[in-house]
Amino acid sequence: MRNVIKSKFEIFKQKTHIIIYGTNTAAGRFFDLVLLGLILLSVILVMLETIKGFDANYHWYLIRLEWIITFFFTIEYVLRIITLKKPKTYILSFYGIIDLIAILPMYLSFFVAGSSVFSVIRALRLLRLFKILNHPQFSNQSTHLRDSIIASRGRILVFMYFMLISCIIIGSVMYVVEGEQAGFTSIPVSIYWCIVTLTTVGFGDITPITPLGQFIASFVMIMGYGVIAVPTGIVTAEMAKNTLRSNESENTVCQKCNSSKHLNNAKFCQKCGSKL
Amino acid sequence: MRNVIKSKFEIFKQKTHIIIYGTNTAAGRFFDLVLLGLILLSVILVMLETIKGFDANYHWYLIRLEWIITFFFTIEYVLRIITLKKPKTYILSFYGIIDLIAILPMYLSFFVAGSSVFSVIRALRLLRLFKILNHPQFSNQSTHLRDSIIASRGRILVFMYFMLISCIIIGSVMYVVEGEQAGFTSIPVSIYWCIVTLTTVGFGDITPITPLGQFIASFVMIMGYGVIAVPTGIVTAEMAKNTLRSNESENTVCQKCNSSKHLNNAKFCQKCGSKL
Amino acid sequence: MRNVIKSKFEIFKQKTHIIIYGTNTAAGRFFDLVLLGLILLSVILVMLETIKGFDANYHWYLIRLEWIITFFFTIEYVLRIITLKKPKTYILSFYGIIDLIAILPMYLSFFVAGSSVFSVIRALRLLRLFKILNHPQFSNQSTHLRDSIIASRGRILVFMYFMLISCIIIGSVMYVVEGEQAGFTSIPVSIYWCIVTLTTVGFGDITPITPLGQFIASFVMIMGYGVIAVPTGIVTAEMAKNTLRSNESENTVCQKCNSSKHLNNAKFCQKCGSKL
Amino acid sequence: MRNVIKSKFEIFKQKTHIIIYGTNTAAGRFFDLVLLGLILLSVILVMLETIKGFDANYHWYLIRLEWIITFFFTIEYVLRIITLKKPKTYILSFYGIIDLIAILPMYLSFFVAGSSVFSVIRALRLLRLFKILNHPQFSNQSTHLRDSIIASRGRILVFMYFMLISCIIIGSVMYVVEGEQAGFTSIPVSIYWCIVTLTTVGFGDITPITPLGQFIASFVMIMGYGVIAVPTGIVTAEMAKNTLRSNESENTVCQKCNSSKHLNNAKFCQKCGSKL
Repeated sequence: MRNVIKSKFEIFKQKTHIIIYGTNTAAGRFFDLVLLGLILLSVILVMLETIKGFDANYHWYLIRLEWIITFFFTIEYVLRIITLKKPKTYILSFYGIIDLIAILPMYLSFFVAGSSVFSVIRALRLLRLFKILNHPQFSNQSTHLRDSIIASRGRILVFMYFMLISCIIIGSVMYVVEGEQAGFTSIPVSIYWCIVTLTTVGFGDITPITPLGQFIASFVMIMGYGVIAVPTGIVTAEMAKNTLRSNESENTVCQKCNSSKHLNNAKFCQKCGSKL
Repeated sequence: MRNVIKSKFEIFKQKTHIIIYGTNTAAGRFFDLVLLGLILLSVILVMLETIKGFDANYHWYLIRLEWIITFFFTIEYVLRIITLKKPKTYILSFYGIIDLIAILPMYLSFFVAGSSVFSVIRALRLLRLFKILNHPQFSNQSTHLRDSIIASRGRILVFMYFMLISCIIIGSVMYVVEGEQAGFTSIPVSIYWCIVTLTTVGFGDITPITPLGQFIASFVMIMGYGVIAVPTGIVTAEMAKNTLRSNESENTVCQKCNSSKHLNNAKFCQKCGSKL
Repeated sequence: MRNVIKSKFEIFKQKTHIIIYGTNTAAGRFFDLVLLGLILLSVILVMLETIKGFDANYHWYLIRLEWIITFFFTIEYVLRIITLKKPKTYILSFYGIIDLIAILPMYLSFFVAGSSVFSVIRALRLLRLFKILNHPQFSNQSTHLRDSIIASRGRILVFMYFMLISCIIIGSVMYVVEGEQAGFTSIPVSIYWCIVTLTTVGFGDITPITPLGQFIASFVMIMGYGVIAVPTGIVTAEMAKNTLRSNESENTVCQKCNSSKHLNNAKFCQKCGSKL
Repeated sequence: MRNVIKSKFEIFKQKTHIIIYGTNTAAGRFFDLVLLGLILLSVILVMLETIKGFDANYHWYLIRLEWIITFFFTIEYVLRIITLKKPKTYILSFYGIIDLIAILPMYLSFFVAGSSVFSVIRALRLLRLFKILNHPQFSNQSTHLRDSIIASRGRILVFMYFMLISCIIIGSVMYVVEGEQAGFTSIPVSIYWCIVTLTTVGFGDITPITPLGQFIASFVMIMGYGVIAVPTGIVTAEMAKNTLRSNESENTVCQKCNSSKHLNNAKFCQKCGSKL
């Protein structure tokens, strides 16, 4: 009797595993779509709750729906853990942590009022879309994008460091030049203004009023405008390299020396000279 | 007698077809120019109608002119249909639908006051310019542009999806940090602010006032400034590939020396001088 | 006696010609520098004149100095004409017209008060710097820049045309959605707002206040942010082509067929196969 | 006795030199990290001092800490000089001047009140990070970045000169069109507005209110939006050239088949398989 229950449970675990983790079966695909839909709905619910007029009228329904979704997510989280043989890797993975964090705020709202707003962290679960859409062409483009950004990371950090030092210096100068009556109340605020200006955002909440301040601001703006070329250039050059590298095929592996980097139309291995 | 009328009607249809759809005859070109001029005039009329001072003085003339143009467009639309053998393809085509939508608002204004403002949709008819200017070089550039955008569509969508999720998270954080007194009245409004900031637009209608809010805003701005490199890089890499590829063909390989790098229209191998 | 005067005048004309038009002699270079300095000074004077506090105190000096410079420019203009054999080409050239326009506003200010402000057009004379600095490397870069912009002109115009039509449509939609209380007082004003938003300038003088308006605005901003990739991509691809074309030398001209387009290390003419 | 002291001093100088200037020993690395930490702390202190509420409560601690750091920097500066054989090159180097300027403001604050704010110049000392991190890959990227910027310097200057002249002309036109009631109080202010608009910053402190002014502003914005492609294109093309060039060498020509397209580290011809 016990064995039957156990084996039934095993079968249930297997089937659930296929539905939850698999994307090949119809049930698996359906589950993923429902999940994504619920995540989206849940994020929208949290948003609606913060709109005064809407919340006043429909608070009861919003809270009810959120609890239902949270309950579903909790079951899903438990099932994800019990259907795995080594649940630890999932629990400690990026998606595992997100899945846990996504349900906690609602339970926390029992103890800390207003913490349900943090349920919005569920938006991160929308990244699951990439898991569902693991179409080769799609994930290729995603990888391509990531590779280009990673390859240009170093140069972008150097650039950002220079910009930050520039912002500290310029911000301090503006604090001295403009002073408090123009809204430059402290050096951190001036640095904030400098970032607003340098990135060409230009809120206009703080603006220079003295001729010298406006002159320095003009300089900062031109600098920001010209200097945007730098990160753009870095990423573009990296992407162009990757895009053009279709020239260079990594598929033809030399049978003799195992070297895999050849030009597209290469007939002989460039490392050992043997025919490809 | 009937036959004569019919054949006359057939001749009229043929001639009209050449004028309306053709761009090679003088009459056809003239018709296209007049049409484009009327579309432009009509769009300007709708605009002028919304300017209070102007409309008060010239309302009578504006309405009269708009009706004349609408009448002309109606006749044109009818002629476009009857001069075709298979009018269905035109009616359901992009231009066919636009042409219909362009005349409807005026007739609708009999029943629904103020609907004449939607006549501005006629601006879409200005896209006809590309049909008129079907110069090969010109349409080449248009195709080139479209191809590059289509080729980079996938990566741009992935990028946009990430940005959207980021905006939801950051918007919610700002809602919690800044609260209502700074104008962050709800999460959707905060997301709107985040998009305004991330895209470096920076209206300044909502701005952070707390130090922490300004710090997060700085982070968002730098992110937006650095991250603009990504769509730019994607499109540029694609365009560079297309532009560079037109220059050099790697297909013509010299039979004598195996060299494959030649200019597009090369007739002789640049390495050994043998005929390609 | 007459001949002597005439020949003296001829010599004077020749010498003046060398000083005014030449850039090789010390006197010619000195004249150019003085001229550039005076143009700059003149532009600064016009600017200072518009600053209320400054003008009130130094009006007498400003006007006096401007007249002196105008007088000098007038003499220079006359000399430029009389020292040329065919002055017509100069008078009708870009620089000739600018030189004339640069002196007219001051003389016009006798008849029309306040027209002296147009003397600022003299700023265009600063373009002469490029004539003075006609260093080969420098003019190369200038040509390179111009070529890239001209080559990408067609595609940029197509792009701008699409953007303009989009702005008309979106502007009208925003006019209907937001209406006058949000500052969208007419369709032209809404189009102005749309351009402000799409180009990521974001003045904030007109901002959407309804949720739907903010949603459409978000869409416009993301579009503007993503779409900036297009002109950048066009120009960059063109520049990359030109920069990389250092691959392709236009210097080696085939002696047999006069063809000048060869790859850098070409040994045989790609058109006729003869040795280079 | 004297010799002993002298030789001890020599040993002290040597040891100190290794610690201060070296980055290979543990002590040297530790010193650099402490130094960087102190610079950062010092910059933060100056910032905090300008925040009214914070300074009021902790003024005593802030001033004390700043003096301690200044004292440390002074000792460091003296040690840097005495441990060198030819201190002149250090004193007159970029870092030497920065190191001196970094300590002066505090001492100056004895004589001129409020000058301690200039201690923020210490932020420039943060550039030392690049000296500490002189990892080859890192400095490669830094060099790569600098080379690309230097190579595109000429074209960017030409571009900026054109933009400046455009801003003067457009600024003056806007001054005439909009006048003082819209905030365009003088030509320099109008030029400031033009730079704000052209660089797509758009503070919104000054905005056109007349239809003609808004039309010109639209033109300036579109120009700024389109023209950002130019500096971006320049830098990107330069970077793409450098990035792509590292990939493929055109120098190694196969002696047998004359093919010149090989990967950088190719040892055998990819066309005919013969040794390069």
